[in-house]
Amino acid sequence: MTIEAASEKDAARPVRYGMIGGGEGAFIGAVHRIAARLDGRFALVAGALSSSAEKARRSGRALGLADERSYPDFAAMMAGEAGRPDGIEAVVIVTPNHVHVPAARAALEAGLHVICDKPLADSLEAGLSLEPVVRGSARLFAVTYNYTAYPLVREARALVASGALGTIRTVQAEYVQDWLTEKLEDTGHKQAEWRTDPARSGAGGAIGDIGTHAFNLAEFITGDTVASLAADLTSFVEGRPVDDNAQILLRFASGARGSLWVSQVAPGHENGLRIRIYGSKGSIRWGQENPNELLYSPFGDTTRIVTRAGNGATAASSGLVRIPAGHPEGYLEAFATLYDEIADAIVAARGGGRPDAGLVPGIDAGLRGLRFVSASIRSSRAGGVWTEV
Amino acid sequence: MTIEAASEKDAARPVRYGMIGGGEGAFIGAVHRIAARLDGRFALVAGALSSSAEKARRSGRALGLADERSYPDFAAMMAGEAGRPDGIEAVVIVTPNHVHVPAARAALEAGLHVICDKPLADSLEAGLSLEPVVRGSARLFAVTYNYTAYPLVREARALVASGALGTIRTVQAEYVQDWLTEKLEDTGHKQAEWRTDPARSGAGGAIGDIGTHAFNLAEFITGDTVASLAADLTSFVEGRPVDDNAQILLRFASGARGSLWVSQVAPGHENGLRIRIYGSKGSIRWGQENPNELLYSPFGDTTRIVTRAGNGATAASSGLVRIPAGHPEGYLEAFATLYDEIADAIVAARGGGRPDAGLVPGIDAGLRGLRFVSASIRSSRAGGVWTEV
Amino acid sequence: MTIEAASEKDAARPVRYGMIGGGEGAFIGAVHRIAARLDGRFALVAGALSSSAEKARRSGRALGLADERSYPDFAAMMAGEAGRPDGIEAVVIVTPNHVHVPAARAALEAGLHVICDKPLADSLEAGLSLEPVVRGSARLFAVTYNYTAYPLVREARALVASGALGTIRTVQAEYVQDWLTEKLEDTGHKQAEWRTDPARSGAGGAIGDIGTHAFNLAEFITGDTVASLAADLTSFVEGRPVDDNAQILLRFASGARGSLWVSQVAPGHENGLRIRIYGSKGSIRWGQENPNELLYSPFGDTTRIVTRAGNGATAASSGLVRIPAGHPEGYLEAFATLYDEIADAIVAARGGGRPDAGLVPGIDAGLRGLRFVSASIRSSRAGGVWTEV
Amino acid sequence: MTIEAASEKDAARPVRYGMIGGGEGAFIGAVHRIAARLDGRFALVAGALSSSAEKARRSGRALGLADERSYPDFAAMMAGEAGRPDGIEAVVIVTPNHVHVPAARAALEAGLHVICDKPLADSLEAGLSLEPVVRGSARLFAVTYNYTAYPLVREARALVASGALGTIRTVQAEYVQDWLTEKLEDTGHKQAEWRTDPARSGAGGAIGDIGTHAFNLAEFITGDTVASLAADLTSFVEGRPVDDNAQILLRFASGARGSLWVSQVAPGHENGLRIRIYGSKGSIRWGQENPNELLYSPFGDTTRIVTRAGNGATAASSGLVRIPAGHPEGYLEAFATLYDEIADAIVAARGGGRPDAGLVPGIDAGLRGLRFVSASIRSSRAGGVWTEV
Repeated sequence: MTIEAASEKDAARPVRYGMIGGGEGAFIGAVHRIAARLDGRFALVAGALSSSAEKARRSGRALGLADERSYPDFAAMMAGEAGRPDGIEAVVIVTPNHVHVPAARAALEAGLHVICDKPLADSLEAGLSLEPVVRGSARLFAVTYNYTAYPLVREARALVASGALGTIRTVQAEYVQDWLTEKLEDTGHKQAEWRTDPARSGAGGAIGDIGTHAFNLAEFITGDTVASLAADLTSFVEGRPVDDNAQILLRFASGARGSLWVSQVAPGHENGLRIRIYGSKGSIRWGQENPNELLYSPFGDTTRIVTRAGNGATAASSGLVRIPAGHPEGYLEAFATLYDEIADAIVAARGGGRPDAGLVPGIDAGLRGLRFVSASIRSSRAGGVWTEV
Repeated sequence: MTIEAASEKDAARPVRYGMIGGGEGAFIGAVHRIAARLDGRFALVAGALSSSAEKARRSGRALGLADERSYPDFAAMMAGEAGRPDGIEAVVIVTPNHVHVPAARAALEAGLHVICDKPLADSLEAGLSLEPVVRGSARLFAVTYNYTAYPLVREARALVASGALGTIRTVQAEYVQDWLTEKLEDTGHKQAEWRTDPARSGAGGAIGDIGTHAFNLAEFITGDTVASLAADLTSFVEGRPVDDNAQILLRFASGARGSLWVSQVAPGHENGLRIRIYGSKGSIRWGQENPNELLYSPFGDTTRIVTRAGNGATAASSGLVRIPAGHPEGYLEAFATLYDEIADAIVAARGGGRPDAGLVPGIDAGLRGLRFVSASIRSSRAGGVWTEV
Repeated sequence: MTIEAASEKDAARPVRYGMIGGGEGAFIGAVHRIAARLDGRFALVAGALSSSAEKARRSGRALGLADERSYPDFAAMMAGEAGRPDGIEAVVIVTPNHVHVPAARAALEAGLHVICDKPLADSLEAGLSLEPVVRGSARLFAVTYNYTAYPLVREARALVASGALGTIRTVQAEYVQDWLTEKLEDTGHKQAEWRTDPARSGAGGAIGDIGTHAFNLAEFITGDTVASLAADLTSFVEGRPVDDNAQILLRFASGARGSLWVSQVAPGHENGLRIRIYGSKGSIRWGQENPNELLYSPFGDTTRIVTRAGNGATAASSGLVRIPAGHPEGYLEAFATLYDEIADAIVAARGGGRPDAGLVPGIDAGLRGLRFVSASIRSSRAGGVWTEV
Repeated sequence: MTIEAASEKDAARPVRYGMIGGGEGAFIGAVHRIAARLDGRFALVAGALSSSAEKARRSGRALGLADERSYPDFAAMMAGEAGRPDGIEAVVIVTPNHVHVPAARAALEAGLHVICDKPLADSLEAGLSLEPVVRGSARLFAVTYNYTAYPLVREARALVASGALGTIRTVQAEYVQDWLTEKLEDTGHKQAEWRTDPARSGAGGAIGDIGTHAFNLAEFITGDTVASLAADLTSFVEGRPVDDNAQILLRFASGARGSLWVSQVAPGHENGLRIRIYGSKGSIRWGQENPNELLYSPFGDTTRIVTRAGNGATAASSGLVRIPAGHPEGYLEAFATLYDEIADAIVAARGGGRPDAGLVPGIDAGLRGLRFVSASIRSSRAGGVWTEV
């Protein structure tokens, strides 16, 4: 049990960060704050929490920020913090998607590390415009594809890399929910409103919102890339301008085949992200709704139930664990692990040098997500033809 | 409990049938015979069990057929039986696929009912040639897509038809196995050999062998038809001339979308036929590896576990049930195994000597049960004290 | 696949048996008949099916018995059959419990093999009175504790015997149902009536009816015997004269400990017979509601999912299997249902007219399958384009 | 989604606490700190982290404590903090069990709130000596029976209280692990050493360490109390001076019956705390290894899968949720919820008055656990007789 080492190795020197977005009424901002706080590696010291100055200050007070460090916008925050000896080292961007790129660009240019919520941008073009800035910067740039940090996802990735599954042949991924089964966006539900509005969410609906997570996971675990896809996107709820269901076939660079089902109109599924990977020597199956178990089937032998931190789990996941086997960990802990790895990288780079956050998703993962959405829409619009990713 | 009615309503007047194929060494013939015998509704009275006359007679004897009713081929059987007052009423065809059509044609023309194993034929053309014969005949023609007869598959079909799921939007079907993960056909394995040989199995490999079952089930439960599909068939095992994996997207006539994954190279899956159907008001999920449960999720409410013959099951399935809820249908097989072991012992003792039925419970097990009840009652009456058994 | 050997090795020389009890309206009689018929090893040729002569004959006719072999009572049957060259070799006793012992005694004394439903008798005293008769007889005496014949129960027993679990330490058994949660016996329900009437069921309620099965299984799998127990029996439903719930602690002869929970008032459980056995080196877990899976946990390693006839299953169970791994044994019943519906149609058409088998797949379903294969191959060959089915 | 309200409603005014125990190498201290930090409601500002002054200071630095607030023992901490305007309001006690009572007494007498790890004390006598101090104090006293704070445990409790299950009849609880299957305490494993040493753990082994949790949960959810029990405690590993397995029958004050199985020698179980409760109208089943699901079976209807924050969950649990349905929460979050409720009570009492922490376990729950251990040991030593709790 390495709980001390894993969770509190550097609680004495937390990374000081400012948050952009995430004020009153927001959702994902609080998740980031909890994750950042969980292991005591980050300290929230400043914020540009809302575009309304009054709301920004009120939100800041509720979070314990000094009024002088509640700024009306991200530019003001960067300017204000630059002069302080205890100024921020990093920003966390949890705004709507179209603000991601300008905020990230400004932060990197100000010499700040950037932790950006997914997707990277509201369009592939916007994302690509950020790429040279990231490549040219010595600061860390992370995109929070949080599902990659579940211990058993890391275990899965290590199993594939070890060759235990042999040559990968097929990958079956799905991310399905049911909350948009009816026309929730007409009832005043904020989350539903902006996610079904192409002006705010981009051209992709479900594929952008959740499909990118499943796509990212498929590439993350296999270490392979999707070379082309054939997509059939549908808007089942009448009058909805973006897709709420997508059936996609995948061809990987290695020759592996697969499918991806994305839906927000699948009754009975709350947050059904699931991935199954089959190779010439074995297979693995994992779903995030019960993330503490991984099924591993070596060909010709019995299927094994690999548990988080349990018998059969390896170093690939054991360092990421805060509590012993049998004590379920979840979504927040996986999110916090990303923050932990980011803190490691930032602290290590305090003396200079470019931070290297290892498996934490960065600009490449961010761009892959945008390419996936773009290819899916083009394939579907062309009648479902195979399209390069 | 309608067990009598369901299982034995007409045991006194069984249907007399002859079997074509299914002699020594065959697989599916025995399954058909067991199924035909289970409810006492059929009597096997004749056979053209093998193309070798010697083997046909030997197989017939093992099954209790009179030698005169073991025929060298199906034509001979039809001719021979036609003249008998106790002649066959029906044939069961369990030959390799290319014999299905000629045998079926001959039987229908001879005025016999036909029960034909799936697939209908080795090619679409051959199947189409049989169509007018069937349409023009007054005899029954059945193809044994056996999965359609699971009680909860019938329940699923009734749920869709009742409108409980609303308009169907997506259908996710899969039929996956792992037995062809390696090149089994090169090891002398008969089943693997002919199923991977286009000359015997037709152009389709996995899609013909098992994909047709999943496809049939999708149409059977939804009552809808697949209008078009986009398929990506692969032969992952080198040198295999037919597909062993298929990723397929589906578009239904109603506008519903779906996917179908078929594989015989998916380690960890023995016979993973599974179907999930999502509509505007709810969804259902069923898999044949645990066929006694159906998940039903009405949108906006908790998911229900519908069990075979249990609470929530309707007339659509209740008439098909031989044993009460909670007794998986394997219950009958376990019961039958006891009988089998008893028969072994009795037959062995026919020549004299005391029968020994091995693990079959006898007087000792019987007495232990009585001792247990007696000790339990005495212990409880004495206030729960420890009591010898 | 040893299906032929397992199921039909001696179908040509079936054991001729007479049934005592099991006429119209009975339940377990039909289960015995189906089980006896499944593998073709038994032939029902005589019966004392009911204490009403009229009902006995009517029941016999429905089962295809000659009138002369439908007897008014078991003594008459034994006398009548004794003189026939084709007389019965065995009896199957499926009467109420208090008839078991006299019928069994008479049969053994008449030189017949006996297959007796459980429990052995309505009291320990009655059971003990039979013991010397059985011990002194050269005939087979079997009690149908049917759960012992599940393939994975045999596998479990072999695992324990092999030493794979080390020294057995604890055994947790339970058999729980919910059908007597309310006072069903007051509503005219026959099964509930006699099972809660001490005059007919004996002093034990739930412990006699189902507790004996769980107890038997615990001793069968461990090969150990329960030395003493402490029991707390309760009748939760007011006015019920027998126990409907039992909490029991067990001490085995070997020193192992355990518990047994028996209930017929446990809502949510249909037929929840479950057993878990823990030793110094590993454990096993099995439940009859999903009997095709056994969990095996070697200490210090991952838990294995052992499937019926699958990887990891041994000779202890493989000889008992009729169908391959992944086909739950309900598979045969579903298959048989198709045959049942076909028989209905054929019998109905005996007088003329075209048979209509309702939901049984016919030429259309057969052709759809061929169209599906054909479209899949064409789509894939064209690069995965959408293709009409 | 009430995530802001639930998790950060008062992050600006965190409760200042000092920790007693929990320095380098400890286990549960870090869990408490993470839980306290998760929602930002607590600030660790002082510590008596180790009985070694050097180790205490080193541990304090790693956690960001000022050296002057790293104290050599709890008395020094209370004295030192008393004089500071920013002094601690509460202590968290995570020492070995025998220190719980003296530390708690001193803290209460110093006017501090107390959060004490379970069990309350190393003996019933010690616990009882604390009772008058707690009753006479105006400060909060909480015992961290953390499993009571899982959202679905609260849901379960509310379901029972609502009458949805009718009169409770049986309760089946178990808490089983496998880590002491072999003699781990002889290998230098610290956790195993003290937990199997009566001098440090008290007379109870597994029943004290984990049995108290299961016992607490049974009383917490049912709102009933165990009136008497009959226990059979065993030490299966040779030479182990405390029990490692316990089979216990329960009688509740209401007349309900039940059983409790506690084991640390059950291979295949990591942290198997599970509870099932059956009443005259329905049942519920929950296990902490997959804590986001609760099975609810209304008698005569289908079983429902109630998910954390999902359809069917009520106000009893919805206020405790940080993330939406389908995003798994776990052990740490439940622990944090206790801390959250404690913070609410402490903040509310800042202006004076006695804090009331609602469902948070206090002295009564602490004493019940000790009574349970004491009664179990007495029952078992007397040969398993029924013993008042």
